Amino acid sequence: MSNNTNTLVEPKKVALKEIKVFAPATVANVVCGFDVLGFAVNAPGDEVVMRLVEEPGVRLLKITGDDGKLPLNSDKNTVSASVKHYLSHIKREEVGVEIELHKKMPIGSGLGSSSASTVAGLYAINQLMGNLLTAKELVPFAMKGEEIACGYGHADNVAPAIMGGFVLVRSYEPLDVISLPVPDGMFAAIVYPEVDVPTKDARQMIRAKVALKDAVTQWGNVAGLVSGLFLNDMDLVGRSMKDVLVEPTRSILIPDFEVLRKLAMENGAVGFGISGSGPSVFALTKDEESAKKITKAQQMHLHQININSQAYVSEVNTEGPRTL
Amino acid sequence: MSNNTNTLVEPKKVALKEIKVFAPATVANVVCGFDVLGFAVNAPGDEVVMRLVEEPGVRLLKITGDDGKLPLNSDKNTVSASVKHYLSHIKREEVGVEIELHKKMPIGSGLGSSSASTVAGLYAINQLMGNLLTAKELVPFAMKGEEIACGYGHADNVAPAIMGGFVLVRSYEPLDVISLPVPDGMFAAIVYPEVDVPTKDARQMIRAKVALKDAVTQWGNVAGLVSGLFLNDMDLVGRSMKDVLVEPTRSILIPDFEVLRKLAMENGAVGFGISGSGPSVFALTKDEESAKKITKAQQMHLHQININSQAYVSEVNTEGPRTL
Repeated sequence: MSNNTNTLVEPKKVALKEIKVFAPATVANVVCGFDVLGFAVNAPGDEVVMRLVEEPGVRLLKITGDDGKLPLNSDKNTVSASVKHYLSHIKREEVGVEIELHKKMPIGSGLGSSSASTVAGLYAINQLMGNLLTAKELVPFAMKGEEIACGYGHADNVAPAIMGGFVLVRSYEPLDVISLPVPDGMFAAIVYPEVDVPTKDARQMIRAKVALKDAVTQWGNVAGLVSGLFLNDMDLVGRSMKDVLVEPTRSILIPDFEVLRKLAMENGAVGFGISGSGPSVFALTKDEESAKKITKAQQMHLHQININSQAYVSEVNTEGPRTL
Repeated sequence: MSNNTNTLVEPKKVALKEIKVFAPATVANVVCGFDVLGFAVNAPGDEVVMRLVEEPGVRLLKITGDDGKLPLNSDKNTVSASVKHYLSHIKREEVGVEIELHKKMPIGSGLGSSSASTVAGLYAINQLMGNLLTAKELVPFAMKGEEIACGYGHADNVAPAIMGGFVLVRSYEPLDVISLPVPDGMFAAIVYPEVDVPTKDARQMIRAKVALKDAVTQWGNVAGLVSGLFLNDMDLVGRSMKDVLVEPTRSILIPDFEVLRKLAMENGAVGFGISGSGPSVFALTKDEESAKKITKAQQMHLHQININSQAYVSEVNTEGPRTL
């Protein structure tokens, strides 16, 4: 890329290049796979508009749709901070970048909101720089963004947001992320009950020690879920979606969690659980119709108990971010 | 089968039918998959000779190769007891059965010795009764045998011994066993150092509580190993063969465990660990030559520290038991 440097620092009045990118929301954990599994959906997601400009430095110009919740300071915002990290890595710190972040999904919903923003930004800068890194290679940069947003750099949201589909984070040191296949016709039914469950608090509720017996049950299910994905066996995926360790604690924070489960299972879900650290819940289904029935029934119930909610029905996103 | 009943109780001097069966040794746990994963090998294994006779009842006539360690009492021996359990289930308790068990593998070696015997017996009686049950349906009967031999009915040895290949025991209640694919060219290098590690003691050494952090690492690896099998990716299988929970404790009972690991990895293993509860160790390799080099190096080392050993090099057994 060094032969482009002169072009970029040449004084110009207009944007050298502009790109608009969508990055998907993600469901981390997938019930049994706490901290190691996640998948991406086609809706919701975030959008980033990014421009290369002559003035060096990364500037976050505007955030919409966040109700003023996110920092505009380019060192504190996950999008601009991870773009800086990327440019520093490729030794192009002289590049001038202007960013607009358009939040198109709820913050603090357990749907990987910060990941979607970060990944949209990283995908955009990588496109603008000529695709220097592969999707997998972008994961550590997005983890840096997660560290800024959540206090620690996990990968179970950012890896599926970047790579699309189901992703296994086998190991962090060294980072080892593996793409898993998506069964035919799989749909996700997501409902976000508008109650407040901060990620940090949700993590702190989890016990530090667990019974080995329960851990064995859990990794039997993790292995079952992964097998179900490879075998295109949605029923196996569904019966593996059990969490004996984390869900019992986290579900307390979600209004009428067991009712929502019942409504999901009665309306054709193969499995149901908490998305990430909640409060969003999700179900996996074999078709779109079941997914629609589930979100409808769950939203109706939440309405009855005076809780506003948002719902999303989507296929699993298999491509990751895309240019709009 | 009811129309055969008269034939069977008719007085005759000779055996009505005789069969000789081989059933394979198995490597349970496969390092990270404690209590949920196992695979079968072509060598070693046990042999059972079974005859239908006119005199009702199940009789264990003879055991060879056990150094007198196993009970001949047909209610206490795992082979005859599980055959009885099978006949009771199919309501054919009037059938007369004579059994000879020929142990062709070490007892208490961590290679599923009791499973191999049990499975050989169950495969034999099922063949003689006209294959009433599928391999998968035989698993609970073999678990009954394990209960007799080990005090509890686990499935991570018997399921691969019956079904062949790699098997995941996702759940016990209800029992859910899943066949996993075997990567091309995979070989197992097994060495049994002749030291005494009773299964019950080996289990009791394991901590009942574990750190959630370690459990997450473990199920990341279990998921990685399963993915590696499906992706035909031996390197992924190998780097997933890590056990942060059980191996640190159990390996203490195995002479020079870390030296044996080093010798395995230096000679082409993709992964190495304890077979079942030990003291046998195993390595997985991409070819037969590496497996032979590994067992040779490990046996030489054990000889130097005055420990007798037995070694087996085998492809993964993909068919389960077979008629000889």
